[in-house]
Amino acid sequence: MNEQLTENIKALIESLYQQGVRHVVVSPGSRTTPVALLLAEFVTHQVADMHLHIAVDERSAGFLGLGIAKTKNEPVVLLATSGTATVNYAPAMAEASSSHVPLIALTTDRPEELQAIGAPQTLHQTNLYGDQTKADVTISVQSTTPDTFAYIVYKTQHLVHLATTAPAGPIQINLPLRKPLMPDLGQAWPEVTPIVFAATNASVQLDDEWLQGPVIFLAGPQEGANYSEQLSQVAQRHHIPVIADVLSQTRPGLTAIVGIDALISAGTIADLPMPKLVVRFGGTPVSAKVLAWLKEHQIQVVQVGTAFSGRDHTRYTDVVVETEAPIFLNAFDQLDFKNNAEFSQAWQDTQKDVARVIANVTDFNDLQVVQAMTQLPADTNLFIANSMPIRDYDNYWQAQNAVHVWANRGANGIDGTISSAVGMALDHENNWLAIGDLAFYHDMNGLMLAKQEKINLTILVTNNDGGGIFSFLPQAAADEYFELLFGTGQGLSIAKVAELYNAKYTLATSQQALVELVKAPSQGLHLIEVQTQRQTNYETHQTVLKELGALHGND
Amino acid sequence: MNEQLTENIKALIESLYQQGVRHVVVSPGSRTTPVALLLAEFVTHQVADMHLHIAVDERSAGFLGLGIAKTKNEPVVLLATSGTATVNYAPAMAEASSSHVPLIALTTDRPEELQAIGAPQTLHQTNLYGDQTKADVTISVQSTTPDTFAYIVYKTQHLVHLATTAPAGPIQINLPLRKPLMPDLGQAWPEVTPIVFAATNASVQLDDEWLQGPVIFLAGPQEGANYSEQLSQVAQRHHIPVIADVLSQTRPGLTAIVGIDALISAGTIADLPMPKLVVRFGGTPVSAKVLAWLKEHQIQVVQVGTAFSGRDHTRYTDVVVETEAPIFLNAFDQLDFKNNAEFSQAWQDTQKDVARVIANVTDFNDLQVVQAMTQLPADTNLFIANSMPIRDYDNYWQAQNAVHVWANRGANGIDGTISSAVGMALDHENNWLAIGDLAFYHDMNGLMLAKQEKINLTILVTNNDGGGIFSFLPQAAADEYFELLFGTGQGLSIAKVAELYNAKYTLATSQQALVELVKAPSQGLHLIEVQTQRQTNYETHQTVLKELGALHGND
Repeated sequence: MNEQLTENIKALIESLYQQGVRHVVVSPGSRTTPVALLLAEFVTHQVADMHLHIAVDERSAGFLGLGIAKTKNEPVVLLATSGTATVNYAPAMAEASSSHVPLIALTTDRPEELQAIGAPQTLHQTNLYGDQTKADVTISVQSTTPDTFAYIVYKTQHLVHLATTAPAGPIQINLPLRKPLMPDLGQAWPEVTPIVFAATNASVQLDDEWLQGPVIFLAGPQEGANYSEQLSQVAQRHHIPVIADVLSQTRPGLTAIVGIDALISAGTIADLPMPKLVVRFGGTPVSAKVLAWLKEHQIQVVQVGTAFSGRDHTRYTDVVVETEAPIFLNAFDQLDFKNNAEFSQAWQDTQKDVARVIANVTDFNDLQVVQAMTQLPADTNLFIANSMPIRDYDNYWQAQNAVHVWANRGANGIDGTISSAVGMALDHENNWLAIGDLAFYHDMNGLMLAKQEKINLTILVTNNDGGGIFSFLPQAAADEYFELLFGTGQGLSIAKVAELYNAKYTLATSQQALVELVKAPSQGLHLIEVQTQRQTNYETHQTVLKELGALHGND
Repeated sequence: MNEQLTENIKALIESLYQQGVRHVVVSPGSRTTPVALLLAEFVTHQVADMHLHIAVDERSAGFLGLGIAKTKNEPVVLLATSGTATVNYAPAMAEASSSHVPLIALTTDRPEELQAIGAPQTLHQTNLYGDQTKADVTISVQSTTPDTFAYIVYKTQHLVHLATTAPAGPIQINLPLRKPLMPDLGQAWPEVTPIVFAATNASVQLDDEWLQGPVIFLAGPQEGANYSEQLSQVAQRHHIPVIADVLSQTRPGLTAIVGIDALISAGTIADLPMPKLVVRFGGTPVSAKVLAWLKEHQIQVVQVGTAFSGRDHTRYTDVVVETEAPIFLNAFDQLDFKNNAEFSQAWQDTQKDVARVIANVTDFNDLQVVQAMTQLPADTNLFIANSMPIRDYDNYWQAQNAVHVWANRGANGIDGTISSAVGMALDHENNWLAIGDLAFYHDMNGLMLAKQEKINLTILVTNNDGGGIFSFLPQAAADEYFELLFGTGQGLSIAKVAELYNAKYTLATSQQALVELVKAPSQGLHLIEVQTQRQTNYETHQTVLKELGALHGND
């Protein structure tokens, strides 16, 4: 009945698989029917290592896919029905664009003859995500042109490859479909030959002319394959301190410097020996101050990475080495260069100071929470929400064990955080999400995915009933309108949310209690709430900075 | 300090107000600061009839604005901070585009020098919603060009006017903003002169040459100003049956025909006298079958409306009268034309048949729920969710009283329904939302808005734990994968959701109990759950159609 449609969609599915797609997030709908059913047949009867995830809310679906793609460093496919369903992917696609994640939206569509003519559930879906996608294509899987099969096989594989090529990014494949939509289940699967995109054996030569003094590595958020181990080893061999962004995967480490933003804010940095050169790896650092500091002191900056394009908004990079970090690190490792011991030691010593001032905090608020979380066991996956948590963890979280850390740190939204964390948690034992109450509320629908995927995920909600970050900004001065526009407490009961999703709930009322929870393995869905005060939290942060500054006579 | 910025944003705000904006939905963020604070000052100290609504989840914020704009028929403004926050408006903007609602997104942005250069929270926001907006503009409110103030005054007023001009639709105003963002609160408000877009006094002349036989009005979903009263009166004077789409606002009425889709499905229509001419008003009907029926029987179609563009996906309109419905109806009313009484009576008689077969339904499922809802008191606002509810109400809801009925019937998504209903409920006494469990889950965050806005809203959740509509589609045949891909039960506890939002909860277990609830005025947020079975519901629908057909010997 629908032999050609079936054959062509199978070509599409096998092509996705051939280029490494192993996870597809499907949102229910009617127009998706042939793709969804054949995907189900594929995972049930053809291959053992491809997985379907079902997510009713397409916004959460998008962020679930983002979380999987980001943490597994592989292309992930989303599938939604025509209309606003597909539009709900837009936030995750935008984040994928900013943070270079290979997310592929299969948007099923109404056919050409139903476009812009009053047919229901029909939007103009061509290039739906505009500048947020690396590429978009509309494929007529019901075309009768003889070349269609070969076109689908080539184009699909090419697009998946494009999505994963650095800088990785999102792709839209739009599929207009006419009724009847039912595929022929049980029809033989065609042979689809993989296209090999051969890797080139790149290397770079570095000379040491530009190494005229002390060097620091600035390890920004890592994208793509993990090179943190290599970076840490090279740094250690050459006595190079690593300004270790919380998302760089280089914490803990013998050379890792935590809290650069606080060190700059507190003035501590003025007492430290200046580097002559800073080598930047990865994405834009969480710290807003560190790039400005480089610029202010005219420290030479070498930027490493193929994803460089648009990576220095202070416009202070002197040298760009357009290669992948591992290749650069191999070359650097050949150089006969070591920082002198005093330089490295001085930077290293800051870590005791940071630890000491944090240890002085006695009220159980955001900073003591971060302190407790340094005890997370090795091999924990930790997702950190935007707004206050990512800043606090970047500054004050001196991990005791090797924890993998993730965030949506491209467009920096508070949306989709829980769903992204669910994506991170698949197939992993110990998983945590650190989040504030507003970001938690924003993506509560993601809790449904946590429940359905039967993962272990402990969500630590630091609940100050509103937007805590605004107490730190000039907006705090606008008393008359502050609570209305910025405070925005939602009065959300985390305990009742736990009830709704059959999650375990714990209210942690002391640091000690929290530490015990942090050390225990995560089991099922567990919501831990810590209730804090916005004003107290602001004051504690100020005190910490003051004490940090005083240690160096900068009070 | 920030005098110019303050002056220009005040020009923007006053211009919005001058063109009729009375509701602004603000989502908290930092980049929005000058606009949000000056809006707060404006509503607090300048005018008494402008309202700010705060919504943390921008997707829900967008649909809240859509609900207000749609039901009040006035332009509504959304305000969000840069990054994915603005992208979360995309689903509501797409629906506004499809259903012609004047929704205006103010998207604050990072300035030019931070674009595409690695600055955080910075997307390419120019023309963010692509083809979904009627127009978009980027306004540099910090420009030092002397013409800026006058430009903002003209451009803003022009854009609001454009948004409201039929066919109405969404607009994006993008506002790049540099730090410092704090406006000068208390600075004098400038004089902003309203631009008058004068109405033209249009009229049309109709002759009666084309009135060669019986006429039916097909009243589709109403857009813009309400003309249902006039339509009903003209129809009554000329003995014209009105195929009354559930969204046409013409139910109940002496001439209103309910259930055209069922009448066609059941075969009843074959016994009815054929019209010679059908005059179409409003948007695409909810009934998928009625346009196809017109085409099949080659009944002449006259389409009325300025929003015609792309309104007949069967391509069977013969005459297009590009004027507003009231003008056409005035002209039609002058014609010396009446249907003969038998014709009208035959159509009218179908209503007793529909009522009788529905009354025969004994199991308490979706159709008995619809039956109970016919008792809603006069002047109730009723929002109907997509998927099954809108179809059931279109077919079987013979309202006993004048109820205003709304839905997101453009792109027909299940997203944003609760938020849209909250928008509908503002300043209105009695408000209901009829919704299935999946659409309910999709926009649970909208319940927060219901709680915060302190409205009366009774939400009737017909809970069959999954996608009931798919049991009616060919997909039902794919047994092996059906529940995974289409059934998709979420196991949601409506009672616990009510707990979470401090809502009243009632489980209605009989039609009689539900009728009592329906007759009572809605108070606060109230969730009423009816638990139904997907398979039983499917079978009941089939039985009803069979009985309807049998009444006319079409079994």
